[in-house]
Amino acid sequence: MKQIEVSRATMGRLPVYLEYLKSTESGTENISATALAKELGLGEVQVRKDLAAVSGAGRPKTGYNVSELISVLEKFLGRNDSSNVVIVGAGKLGRALLDYSGFKDYGLEIMAAFDKEVNEPEKSKQGKPVYSMDLLDDFCRENNIRIGVIAVPASSAQEVCDRFVKNGIRAVWCFAPCSLTVPDGIPVQYENMALSLAYLNKKI
Amino acid sequence: MKQIEVSRATMGRLPVYLEYLKSTESGTENISATALAKELGLGEVQVRKDLAAVSGAGRPKTGYNVSELISVLEKFLGRNDSSNVVIVGAGKLGRALLDYSGFKDYGLEIMAAFDKEVNEPEKSKQGKPVYSMDLLDDFCRENNIRIGVIAVPASSAQEVCDRFVKNGIRAVWCFAPCSLTVPDGIPVQYENMALSLAYLNKKI
Repeated sequence: MKQIEVSRATMGRLPVYLEYLKSTESGTENISATALAKELGLGEVQVRKDLAAVSGAGRPKTGYNVSELISVLEKFLGRNDSSNVVIVGAGKLGRALLDYSGFKDYGLEIMAAFDKEVNEPEKSKQGKPVYSMDLLDDFCRENNIRIGVIAVPASSAQEVCDRFVKNGIRAVWCFAPCSLTVPDGIPVQYENMALSLAYLNKKI
Repeated sequence: MKQIEVSRATMGRLPVYLEYLKSTESGTENISATALAKELGLGEVQVRKDLAAVSGAGRPKTGYNVSELISVLEKFLGRNDSSNVVIVGAGKLGRALLDYSGFKDYGLEIMAAFDKEVNEPEKSKQGKPVYSMDLLDDFCRENNIRIGVIAVPASSAQEVCDRFVKNGIRAVWCFAPCSLTVPDGIPVQYENMALSLAYLNKKI
């Protein structure tokens, strides 16, 4: 799978290229890597490498066709087919993620949060639903949920993870400081806030 | 600076070594990389590499002296000298970070949050102070704050960053989706939640 080889740093720049190309689309048919690099304050080699990872190379002297590149980037970033996500744990972190607007840049939508402290359905500040845990299984199946986010304490994380797996979830994003056991083929990404901050601290 | 060369992945494992070594300290004087690897379910080469990055190599046949290794790891992880941190922006994310208990593993403490919506001092759920922005400058200077965390919308992020810099902050951890301008020598680490989730989604 070619897509897996795209680095996280490249992934981070793709929405930047896309926004710029869209803003310039009406005026320009083609654009060179040199021009893109200059406009975005990036290195030319980096731009060529980033775009080569998702698209072909630009044509000599002509560069990239703007509309084609837009459509390749949109497809790669999954903007045309939303991936559905749910969160378990509607504490401060869970609710912050639920209402975060940046996921749509990558074709992702957090559809709902679930929490064992919630009995009657609630709405988040941005109007997203927060449900009781009783509704999790049906919701996952009916909405073809691909990714489950764990925002509960470490002591409940494995239990939540098992329930995600049972409901056909295909990847887990875990904010609890723990190590999860999952069946083969289900990727888990751990988010360790303490480690990020510690890493920054070492750079001072 | 040797410390900067330690990878994030290695940094993530150091607290695991430290906890294990502490649990075994009373019974063992020396421990081999082989034994450590086996106990922690890691590869032996990885253990040797991780420990070589912060300490010397183990001695042939003897391995590492447990007490020495504990003290090297504690020093490296900054457990003996707390780094002081403040957050600006006491929304859901800011408060989640303020009350997160995992930072102490890396000798970090988020001492207070500041928010322009706050007038009278408040307490977070865990009893940490949340102050008005008026108090930020004095607080930073009096408490020798090293790291400033930005948890405000992108539109206010640069303003907050400038104020951090003016108050002698030495590194910035930014959760706003933006690009900050800082003087040379002040590292900025951006946390992009959307990118993390998108990256996971590509692995499915």
